[in-house]
Amino acid sequence: MIGRLNHVAIAVPDLAAGAALYRDTLGATVSAPQAEPDHGVTVVFIELPNTKIELLEPLGEASPIAAFLAKNPSGGIHHVCYEVDDILAARDRLKTGGARVLGDGEPKIGAHGKPVLFLHPKDFNGTLVELEQA
Amino acid sequence: MIGRLNHVAIAVPDLAAGAALYRDTLGATVSAPQAEPDHGVTVVFIELPNTKIELLEPLGEASPIAAFLAKNPSGGIHHVCYEVDDILAARDRLKTGGARVLGDGEPKIGAHGKPVLFLHPKDFNGTLVELEQA
Repeated sequence: MIGRLNHVAIAVPDLAAGAALYRDTLGATVSAPQAEPDHGVTVVFIELPNTKIELLEPLGEASPIAAFLAKNPSGGIHHVCYEVDDILAARDRLKTGGARVLGDGEPKIGAHGKPVLFLHPKDFNGTLVELEQA
Repeated sequence: MIGRLNHVAIAVPDLAAGAALYRDTLGATVSAPQAEPDHGVTVVFIELPNTKIELLEPLGEASPIAAFLAKNPSGGIHHVCYEVDDILAARDRLKTGGARVLGDGEPKIGAHGKPVLFLHPKDFNGTLVELEQA
């Protein structure tokens, strides 16, 4: 069911410093920062040959990564995102398998403009899993 | 400098349960377990079209993931591994940039039979980074 690893998301307290680290120290290609006010984050994309890393900095009052950064002040890996062909079919299969979908269980339009769901980390070995309809 | 994302490693307390979750619930292709006594882990590979996820379970007395699982009993994302062409050149560039290489600073032969280094998570936004010479 799951396909490509779409991205690994890393929450950072300082996006400019995180971007400089990946660009200058690790020598990767880093996009310009992109504010996503509807998703409560500003993001830069680290473009790797086979996938991407997203560095996320909180934006606004109710950022979904604020609590994570309060617990992990220097940042950390926040979630992984797998692509699926049909997000409703994926959701139904997961629910049948006993996995919990976060929120009201309905896909939302994610930061890439595509339908996404998040799965409960307690059901996936402590890993927050995002599914994105590719 | 960094190339492909070689893998994302997820530490799990129960490898059979973790493998079943990825195989049955997420519908992914999962390898047979492989003991790596020299590296203190047993691993299964989740083969995705563009990269792989490695589920790691502690093996033996001095497993490098034992402390992580003591802090995160249900598991969690342990590290990301980026490929580099020349690990000694990469190390020297990183050290010049002020990043700390774990251990004695010399590449070791990793679980895939290739030279690897680990970088200090405090220098990379709380992310343990492995570099592997591809």
